[in-house]
Amino acid sequence: MTDFTTTRKRFHLPDGVIYLDGNSLGPLPVAAAKRVSQTLEAEWGEMLIRGWNAAGWMEQPARVGDRVGRLIGAEPGTVVMGDTLSIKVYQALAAALDLNPDRKVVLSDNGNFPSDLYIAQGLLRSRGAGHELKVVDPEAVEAAIDDTVAVLMLTEVDYRTGRLHDMKALTAKAHAAGVITVWDLAHSAGALPVELAAAQADFAVGCTYKYLNGGPGAPAFIYVAPRHAHTARPSLSGWMGHEAPFAFDLDYRAGTGIERMRVGTPPVIALASLEAALDAWDGVDMGDLRAASIALSECFITEVEARCPDLILASPRDTNRRGSQVSFRHPEGYAIMQALIARGVIGDFRAPDILRFGFTPLYLTQDDVLRAVEILAEIMADRLWDKEEYRKKARVT
Amino acid sequence: MTDFTTTRKRFHLPDGVIYLDGNSLGPLPVAAAKRVSQTLEAEWGEMLIRGWNAAGWMEQPARVGDRVGRLIGAEPGTVVMGDTLSIKVYQALAAALDLNPDRKVVLSDNGNFPSDLYIAQGLLRSRGAGHELKVVDPEAVEAAIDDTVAVLMLTEVDYRTGRLHDMKALTAKAHAAGVITVWDLAHSAGALPVELAAAQADFAVGCTYKYLNGGPGAPAFIYVAPRHAHTARPSLSGWMGHEAPFAFDLDYRAGTGIERMRVGTPPVIALASLEAALDAWDGVDMGDLRAASIALSECFITEVEARCPDLILASPRDTNRRGSQVSFRHPEGYAIMQALIARGVIGDFRAPDILRFGFTPLYLTQDDVLRAVEILAEIMADRLWDKEEYRKKARVT
Repeated sequence: MTDFTTTRKRFHLPDGVIYLDGNSLGPLPVAAAKRVSQTLEAEWGEMLIRGWNAAGWMEQPARVGDRVGRLIGAEPGTVVMGDTLSIKVYQALAAALDLNPDRKVVLSDNGNFPSDLYIAQGLLRSRGAGHELKVVDPEAVEAAIDDTVAVLMLTEVDYRTGRLHDMKALTAKAHAAGVITVWDLAHSAGALPVELAAAQADFAVGCTYKYLNGGPGAPAFIYVAPRHAHTARPSLSGWMGHEAPFAFDLDYRAGTGIERMRVGTPPVIALASLEAALDAWDGVDMGDLRAASIALSECFITEVEARCPDLILASPRDTNRRGSQVSFRHPEGYAIMQALIARGVIGDFRAPDILRFGFTPLYLTQDDVLRAVEILAEIMADRLWDKEEYRKKARVT
Repeated sequence: MTDFTTTRKRFHLPDGVIYLDGNSLGPLPVAAAKRVSQTLEAEWGEMLIRGWNAAGWMEQPARVGDRVGRLIGAEPGTVVMGDTLSIKVYQALAAALDLNPDRKVVLSDNGNFPSDLYIAQGLLRSRGAGHELKVVDPEAVEAAIDDTVAVLMLTEVDYRTGRLHDMKALTAKAHAAGVITVWDLAHSAGALPVELAAAQADFAVGCTYKYLNGGPGAPAFIYVAPRHAHTARPSLSGWMGHEAPFAFDLDYRAGTGIERMRVGTPPVIALASLEAALDAWDGVDMGDLRAASIALSECFITEVEARCPDLILASPRDTNRRGSQVSFRHPEGYAIMQALIARGVIGDFRAPDILRFGFTPLYLTQDDVLRAVEILAEIMADRLWDKEEYRKKARVT
């Protein structure tokens, strides 16, 4: 049984803050500052260029990838770190399209994170006439899978509502129709058990600054199923994905397996922070995590619905169809969230009317949840959000 | 007049090391460790998600871009940071091709960094039949510019030999033939004066971990000339390049000017290190830097040729045709470099036979250069490189 009182000590949480936004940016792991200092001072500072060998920087993307892989049910040697999630979406989608060259439709849903759709739009335009991004409602995805579709590209957990797709069932349906799948795990990795290998997913991508607590702008990851790893064509064919990067040949030859999905020089300092963050997952069982996450989420829903009747649940009520976040709608959602943040309860807002709250058992307790609802209820009962200062929108919301 | 005794104090250099590899990875700026700690502890740790507004993380790519821009003669608001150099090459080359849709040839040279060629190969393959990467000798570039060429893609300073292309002349010739230019400044930015605006360069890209000392895997930059900034089409159309990223529209609309070349969430921690590194450039005049770089390089060449007759100069002898590095050839180059490193003189080796030495006046003095040659001369005179331990090749050379 995972001891979540222990994991909580692995994070720095500011005094007076209840942090319900780990689904957007996880908090600072206590070990991260020291680990990053060590990378700067003992590795970069003392080893200089020799750090690439002596400190293992060159293997870091695969080494860290395997640690992330454990949390998402990936086979060893199938995950590599680097770049940003949008870049990894591009790589996965391009490779998936190349594996299905006779079809031209990418199927996705309007609950996907917009950047994934934008990346697909840019990529498909460059592929020329006939290529199409078909975007349907999340509920209509299953029915839209047919033999015209080249790639099914979905985010498993909806960034606004927390709605959870059935990865295994949709992947099976896709495969039966000859469709390749690309799964975005941005709101899944570290949030709930993911079983990429068991689901027979083809490609998966994700970021590490949310539930994995890697830090602002932490590197992304990409998974390629072993059956595709040697045939998937790298669209972003940079030197780190070359079979022999330091031979400096003039012609590209794709590297072995997942290594070919590397592009440029690895982000060593950012990966050091992420490595410290992954230490916080030592001894954590993903089943225990899911149970704790559900308990926190259910408690929150029950309490909010009892005490704040103006807030309308935007997440699926069925806990099996939800990730590790809960969202409520209110026309004054932005101002309400600002009032909450001013009282130390940090969630976030997504246009047009969604208040998002992430539940992260590694550092969040039921007491935190009850206290947060207490404050939310006060704000709603007394309309404490109705102040000019809470309505002024910041550039980033 | 730039005071290089002051700038030297801004870097940590290990005892007993003479560092002639700042052209590969610059050393740790003294201020970087503190600046990064502050980003982790005071910003990420205390502000959490609020750091995007409160700590200015969201504007960091453009703010840092302007600081890099000053060092490469770019107009304000034309440079943005992010990703790796290979990704930025892809973006620049794709946008350049789109600006010249009736032509299908990308012209480059075999002195270009291989990753640039690999990226071009991958991109051109996806563009379909007729597209071609034409790679000629560096000396043959000028004559190969004609009206079949869509894009001229060159690295200004050759990573092996230090040969310097005439950016202004080649750009003028390219424009006269209706060719768009993409300049890679990996070995130029911070190494010598670059005048992108004056040269009328169209696109430029570069990394920041070499002469700019941003740290291992530090973010790259991209420059788009103001005349193209609103028409250049983003191939990697991620949300951070969207006109309104936080509107979460389903359709991509390219952002204003250089902002459209942003892709995903910015690498905040890595950019903090780079910001500290850029402080070391305060008060540095690029003309003074060039004069100091030439003095160090000329001193090195003169001394090595006088004392190590077996080493053959691989760099142009004309100082005006050289960047800020000097290379020598020797069939036993790898072992010689290992012997040098064992004695505290760090340069690097590039296959098949090149010993590279970078000259970086910010932290390198003439005494360092003379001492380095002293050690090199001892190694050559006594064949001290001829040991088994120096011949064993590490994975990364």
